[in-house]
This record gives sequence, structure tokens and C-alpha cells, in this order.
Amino acid sequence: MTTPDEAAGTRPSTPAEATRNDPHRLPDVSGLVVGILGGTGPQGRGLAYRLAGAGQQVIIGSRDAARAASTAAAIGADVRGADNATTARESDLVIVATPWEGHAELLATLRAELAGKIVVDCVNPLGFDKKGAYALTPEEGSAAQQAAALLPDSRVTAAFHHLSAVTLEDRQIEKIDTDILVLGDERAATDTVQALASRLPGARGLYGGRMRNAHQVESLVANLISVNRRYKAHAGLRITDV
Amino acid sequence: MTTPDEAAGTRPSTPAEATRNDPHRLPDVSGLVVGILGGTGPQGRGLAYRLAGAGQQVIIGSRDAARAASTAAAIGADVRGADNATTARESDLVIVATPWEGHAELLATLRAELAGKIVVDCVNPLGFDKKGAYALTPEEGSAAQQAAALLPDSRVTAAFHHLSAVTLEDRQIEKIDTDILVLGDERAATDTVQALASRLPGARGLYGGRMRNAHQVESLVANLISVNRRYKAHAGLRITDV
Repeated sequence: MTTPDEAAGTRPSTPAEATRNDPHRLPDVSGLVVGILGGTGPQGRGLAYRLAGAGQQVIIGSRDAARAASTAAAIGADVRGADNATTARESDLVIVATPWEGHAELLATLRAELAGKIVVDCVNPLGFDKKGAYALTPEEGSAAQQAAALLPDSRVTAAFHHLSAVTLEDRQIEKIDTDILVLGDERAATDTVQALASRLPGARGLYGGRMRNAHQVESLVANLISVNRRYKAHAGLRITDV
Repeated sequence: MTTPDEAAGTRPSTPAEATRNDPHRLPDVSGLVVGILGGTGPQGRGLAYRLAGAGQQVIIGSRDAARAASTAAAIGADVRGADNATTARESDLVIVATPWEGHAELLATLRAELAGKIVVDCVNPLGFDKKGAYALTPEEGSAAQQAAALLPDSRVTAAFHHLSAVTLEDRQIEKIDTDILVLGDERAATDTVQALASRLPGARGLYGGRMRNAHQVESLVANLISVNRRYKAHAGLRITDV
């Protein structure tokens, strides 16, 4: 059978190459304004709280600007609130944390505002029935690929799928014990998102593959829900040997 | 958006319930004879080496009984080799570690030998091109569901997808730093496979969901291949907060 070892590459041959290619060297993202669409939901609020706590400027977006403003005030840490279009326009990097229902409709309206920007899709298309959660397969392959199709002028990536919103929002918890897989087809964009993910205290942003491999990362949340139910946990993922 | 917290249950209300439902209480599997179909490949050899080293009786199966016997002799630790049908017949629990190509054809011939037994599918249906690995989607949804469809008289589960064969076979490495997600629809079967997985030194078998959620676990190997390539690693997975 196929094992994960198949394609492990060789090490760079010279010190100069090693420095240039070092996958742990990430850009400084501390000056970026981060917008969060769907920022009034638990995931959006949790990310806003953690990123702002790490010193990032954060704007949370909502259809309802007043609701965004009151949620932002409740989070504190200088988080601002605005309607989704304003949030997209005034941010350098935009996280999409909306429900799967309405994902396409919202992004289609923001193509101009999101042009040229890094967009981080963290939406998990799931269905639920009596047996629990199961994966939905978007026509484009994944929510992230749907975003890329709708936002041809943006630099679309995928990340932040496996975070527990309960943990993110729990102010008694100092460190988020998880790695964050970042997917995308453009190295500079995934490096930037990895750097941002690594600003969450305790967390680490790691490259996790190309956009075409986003579906399984999104739908793995169905499995984590099963883990959480069986073990009464708020599970996270760590990648070993990296 | 949907987060993994959605369906986290409540804690059992009485000590008796807590004991009965304790997901960490697993059966003693030390007396089971474990067969490994496709046992002469790197994954099969690595699992045989680790399970036999933990004291399990192991038979590795191959189309070619002589090849199975010589591979078994090379592994040592009392591992036996046989043709696939004999391996299936003489084992209590059978791991399917064949290539995806030929998976269906092999299992279809072993329905009688595998009747009533726990079958553990660890096959990852992947395609490869110049950009790396990508997920294939079997008609049945996943390799494990294909196995279940072909083996209606067996107790089919899915596990051991994310193990590095290089790490398993490396005799300098004492502990396998990874959790092993075990999927299936029958609690007694997944508990048994979790117990077996936990016999790999350093590893831990955790329940990972129902069969219908096997596809994303199988295809996550494409992402781990990307991780391995980027970080020159042999990545494993740990589930945190469990």
C-alpha cells in the first residue's frame, strides 16, 4: 500500500540552499490587519481573541455591523467590528469563518474587496444526522476550492479547520495545543498564513499541501467530532517528527 | 462555521456509567493471531516487525508463499509467512496492507476465509502526478467501505493509515510517536483494533469515527506526503486533549 514516506525528498545539498529553503523561516506578519468574515460566530470570536491577544490588529465582520461592533467590544483587546464588505476592504488578510451555508453567496459579493489579498478559508462542509457528522463534497472539491473559484483575483489558502472554538474562547486556557495545517498553491501566501497561525499561543502553522488536497482536511472535522464525543474532549492535532 | 466542538457530549453522570463507558478500557488482545495481507510490502513488514516485537503472533501473507516465508524469516521474531488465503484462514484478525491496485480483486477471493473475523483496512487510495499525491475516491466512498461491501460476513474496520513505513522498519527507533485512528461501526471491533494499535510501542489507538468517515482519513496521507516533502520528515499524528 501507499505510505506517507513515498515522496520524502532529499535534504538540500549546500548551506545556502538550506537557508533559502528552510521551511521554518516565515515572514514577519505582525503589521498585517486581519479581517474575519463571520467573525461573530464562536470560531471567529475565538480567533479574534487569540490573534488580538498576540498583538495583531483584528476586524471582525458580520452582515450586521452593529452586531459586529458589540461582539468586538465584548472581546476587547482593540478588536474592531464592521460589516463584511468594510472588513474585507480594510484588512490585509481575510479569514473566512462563515457557516458553509451561505459561503458561496457571501464570497461572490466580495470579489472586488478581496482582490489581491490573502484569503484564508477555514470552512468545513459537513452534514449532521442521528449518527453524527459526515463530509459534504462541494462541487468544486472543497470549500477552499470553491472560494478560489469565486475569488480569482485573490490569493486563496485554507487553514484553521481543526481548532476548538471552545478552547480558543476559554480565557483560562493559555496555550492552544495544536498544529495548524495551511494549504495553498502559492508559497508566499502559505508562508504568511503559517506565520499568522504560529502567533496563536502554543500553536504552530505547518504547510499541509496543495488546494486540491483541502477536502480531506476540511472533512476530518467529522472525525474530530467523533473523537470529542467518545472522549469528552476538545481534540487538536499535532504533527510529529516536524 | 462548524467547529469540532459541535457534538461534544456530556460526561457520564454516575461512577458506574463512567466505568462501563470508559473509552480507554480496551480488551486484552495479546492472544490474537494477526495476519497481514500484502505483508511483504514496507507497511506490512513494518507492522509485522512491531507487532511481533510486542509479543503478538503474526503471519504475513503474499500471493507468493515462498516470498512471504523469506520475508518473514528476515523480520525474525517468530513471524510466519504464507499465501494470502492461508494467512486469512489461520489468523484471528486480518490487516489489509495491499496496494490500492488489486485491493478489490484480492478481497473478493477471501470472503469465506475472512468470514466472522475482524478485518483492518489500512489502504490509502492515492494518485500521483508531477505535483505530488492526490486523493482518489473509490465508488464505495473509501477503500474501507469497499472492503466492507466485498466482505459482508466480516467485521471491517479501518486503521494504520498514517504510519511511516520507514519509521516502523527502522530498528534504531524504539517508539512510534503517533496516534492511530481506528474507524468502524461496531464498538467491540474498534475497541479490539485500538488495543492492537496500542501494542505498537509509543503508539496509541484512538476511536476515529464511523466507516462513512474513512475517506478523509485515508486521503489525509496525501497531505502527510506534502508535509514529509516540505520538512524532510516522516510525519505522524497526535490527537491532543485525549
